[in-house]
Amino acid sequence: MPPRVVTVGARVIDLNCDVGEGFGSWRMGPDEALLRIVSSANVACGFHGGDPSWMRRTCDAAIAGGVAIGAHVGFPDLAGFGRRHLEMSVPELTDAVLYQIGALDAFARTGGDRVRYVKPHGALYHAAAQREDHAAAVVAAVGEFDAELAVVAPPGSRLLVAAAAAGLAAAAEGFADRAYTADGGLMPRSQPGAVLTDPDAIGRQAVALAEDTAGGPADAVGTLCVHSDTPGAERVARAVRAALERAGFTVAAFTAVPAAP
Amino acid sequence: MPPRVVTVGARVIDLNCDVGEGFGSWRMGPDEALLRIVSSANVACGFHGGDPSWMRRTCDAAIAGGVAIGAHVGFPDLAGFGRRHLEMSVPELTDAVLYQIGALDAFARTGGDRVRYVKPHGALYHAAAQREDHAAAVVAAVGEFDAELAVVAPPGSRLLVAAAAAGLAAAAEGFADRAYTADGGLMPRSQPGAVLTDPDAIGRQAVALAEDTAGGPADAVGTLCVHSDTPGAERVARAVRAALERAGFTVAAFTAVPAAP
Amino acid sequence: MPPRVVTVGARVIDLNCDVGEGFGSWRMGPDEALLRIVSSANVACGFHGGDPSWMRRTCDAAIAGGVAIGAHVGFPDLAGFGRRHLEMSVPELTDAVLYQIGALDAFARTGGDRVRYVKPHGALYHAAAQREDHAAAVVAAVGEFDAELAVVAPPGSRLLVAAAAAGLAAAAEGFADRAYTADGGLMPRSQPGAVLTDPDAIGRQAVALAEDTAGGPADAVGTLCVHSDTPGAERVARAVRAALERAGFTVAAFTAVPAAP
Amino acid sequence: MPPRVVTVGARVIDLNCDVGEGFGSWRMGPDEALLRIVSSANVACGFHGGDPSWMRRTCDAAIAGGVAIGAHVGFPDLAGFGRRHLEMSVPELTDAVLYQIGALDAFARTGGDRVRYVKPHGALYHAAAQREDHAAAVVAAVGEFDAELAVVAPPGSRLLVAAAAAGLAAAAEGFADRAYTADGGLMPRSQPGAVLTDPDAIGRQAVALAEDTAGGPADAVGTLCVHSDTPGAERVARAVRAALERAGFTVAAFTAVPAAP
Repeated sequence: MPPRVVTVGARVIDLNCDVGEGFGSWRMGPDEALLRIVSSANVACGFHGGDPSWMRRTCDAAIAGGVAIGAHVGFPDLAGFGRRHLEMSVPELTDAVLYQIGALDAFARTGGDRVRYVKPHGALYHAAAQREDHAAAVVAAVGEFDAELAVVAPPGSRLLVAAAAAGLAAAAEGFADRAYTADGGLMPRSQPGAVLTDPDAIGRQAVALAEDTAGGPADAVGTLCVHSDTPGAERVARAVRAALERAGFTVAAFTAVPAAP
Repeated sequence: MPPRVVTVGARVIDLNCDVGEGFGSWRMGPDEALLRIVSSANVACGFHGGDPSWMRRTCDAAIAGGVAIGAHVGFPDLAGFGRRHLEMSVPELTDAVLYQIGALDAFARTGGDRVRYVKPHGALYHAAAQREDHAAAVVAAVGEFDAELAVVAPPGSRLLVAAAAAGLAAAAEGFADRAYTADGGLMPRSQPGAVLTDPDAIGRQAVALAEDTAGGPADAVGTLCVHSDTPGAERVARAVRAALERAGFTVAAFTAVPAAP
Repeated sequence: MPPRVVTVGARVIDLNCDVGEGFGSWRMGPDEALLRIVSSANVACGFHGGDPSWMRRTCDAAIAGGVAIGAHVGFPDLAGFGRRHLEMSVPELTDAVLYQIGALDAFARTGGDRVRYVKPHGALYHAAAQREDHAAAVVAAVGEFDAELAVVAPPGSRLLVAAAAAGLAAAAEGFADRAYTADGGLMPRSQPGAVLTDPDAIGRQAVALAEDTAGGPADAVGTLCVHSDTPGAERVARAVRAALERAGFTVAAFTAVPAAP
Repeated sequence: MPPRVVTVGARVIDLNCDVGEGFGSWRMGPDEALLRIVSSANVACGFHGGDPSWMRRTCDAAIAGGVAIGAHVGFPDLAGFGRRHLEMSVPELTDAVLYQIGALDAFARTGGDRVRYVKPHGALYHAAAQREDHAAAVVAAVGEFDAELAVVAPPGSRLLVAAAAAGLAAAAEGFADRAYTADGGLMPRSQPGAVLTDPDAIGRQAVALAEDTAGGPADAVGTLCVHSDTPGAERVARAVRAALERAGFTVAAFTAVPAAP
């Protein structure tokens, strides 16, 4: 089943979360439940989490639920879950990202769909947001694999700029459970109130981010991330989706929305 | 550059060898030299050898030389170079093979070509030849990825039978440097004379295998393997090719030869 | 704190369980709770589970609770959690086991104790029980590292025989939650009733095994395994310990009991 | 055979090189030849190179030749050969270093010797030289394992300072094939003449460094590194040793020289 098609003109927002991050006998988040709530699934590709069998199960479940599949590419560091920066060269990183996209796409196609977008994971997400070389490597790999793929990155990040410069579709990502500063940046985790835990507050934050998007600038948020590895992840994700729908939004994969002319 | 097209009716034989089996800073065979001699390249996919950057370099070199790219899929065992049997379940093995094909295909396509065939490596080569479950897993993964891909396996093996039963193209593989028994099996390595080392003898053996093929049964040898990890690998490969050409054979990728009607 | 010393003449039984089997961000069993119940801890050494930081945390917790530390050595197969047979040669396997014991001992000694015994994990447990070559490799590694270390293996297994022949201390292991056949073997999992799930039944089984030990033959059970990776593992372990204590047994590390003269 | 004991008062210098850096079927340097030339062997421990069987072979060969064994500890990054920085926390790094020392020591002791010193490899060598946190992690692990172990680090590095502050023996390391600046630092590789390739020039450089040591300050060079992974490594190592001996130096393991009172 392909991602849901969105009526043009509708107030639409995408919800994404990380899934398929188990490894062999080890599990991570409540994938099955989350895949019934979100519209886009960032599927781990075996470098920071996931393995071939997790990838098949996760792709199959995403496709069955009409959830768009994204390649959640990371540094090759299972022991560190991709959260530790690894100083790879641009060619090494380009090749590592291309490898992961290709491997995941095999499972997506076997299930009848394909990879729709790429979102870096963990330390690579931060590195590609802040460093031109890492952003360039991710963009190069995506462009080589399929220039129709979109990229997910933080608003104002180097990755978003590099993707746009290369002609790739890109979606700026907001976090429903993180407080923002007045200038639009994430409040550092070290500050009180930086991480929201109350489902109602998270729901309000999600709606506020989605409202900005509806009338927003070019890099306004196009997809909202709900975390999968925090306690109560499923409950929070439900609250976010319910709040968005009460506010009149349709939750749908951003990759299924036709780009504006 | 695509694999060379072969004139119908010509005496044609394929030469394949294993390449791209380095890992990070470690090298294995004389890839560059061998890719100027053979017509098909079995490219390691990161499970028993190879890594994303080796895969790119190897695919690029194969494509530049007009050599067909095959996925050399193995058990996930870098420390053992894929030569130790790992008791994977059929679903696990199917997923592991599919992952490797997908990853390699990304590099082949980036270079302008695509994966043309699959040849299991090491312990998986032997397991898929002898066991129905392992043969079924390899065939399932190939069929899921692309039913146009061919499979390389020993004559009379379960893998060859399973591939044919599934409607996949398949090529039986001969070894130019191994002695054969009267009934067509490989002479066990423990017997004297089982492994040929004299280039002239290896050349004669190659021609004999190719002659059988020209008028042979359905599972006659369609591709000859020259080893890449033995001393003098390059010299032996050159001798094999020269002997075949002197005997009137054209060396060309078996995947480029139109299947008989 | 060293393992508790047991009064000679007491009815004593050891309870062991697998701990430290997380890997990086992934968790496995309820280690903290189990380490308050058992007397011997089989600590994963990084090959099938565990990593350096898990090993430190687990050794520290075991030592703090007076629980004896055993090296839970496995095949190098994180993706398969050590449950898939890997056909290693005797020298390879010997070296792999020695490596794991040495690494774990560094953490045990840093915490003020040392490795007391070795118990193979998963597929290696079964292989060393049934195959002489694998049993020989485990025994060789243990003997090389420290001939004072004990070995844990199934009653009647090749590993138990090989350990005894090499002069190593050894303990036969029983399973409180598995049904036994009349001749003392484990009932195959495929048969109804093979796996006990009722805590009371498991407690009775534990007491029966311990009673046999008290007056039993040379390879009577000396240590009982409680599983850590099944639902309700903590509750079952508590039930087993309570049943043993009600029956008059002292639960203590078998490595702390002086060998009979 | 223990490391050679050095007569007090003699002009003595240590030659070290990296060995055991193969992995499975892959080889790296000419270990056997180098172990007949140097006095100290930095043995890879499985994280950047090496595996249990390489470790046994390398320890056995070092011990047979009277060469002191050092733990060549690295970041867990086989694909990058430990040459890429991995941003590990201090506890993670401490645990990773302790694990590697413990594993190697098991092989050294099986051969009748033990690990004598620790030298970080590649990116960890540079990180521990420049960053206090990484230096602290290495020193903590060494101290935990055995406070008699020495540490090898560049002159003036944070690791050398931290080791001294912790009461560990330490040896400053010079490079016979690298040009030095007037203030004692390594000339950057980007400058012409930074890397010496002429064996005679390398020999003269080695003697100059050793002469400085004989009458030098506290962090004068105590061990000279000869590379194992460059073309002609064996020939260069021979030239260095011959030049030192012609200049009246005895080549001997620094860990075998009694510390000054």
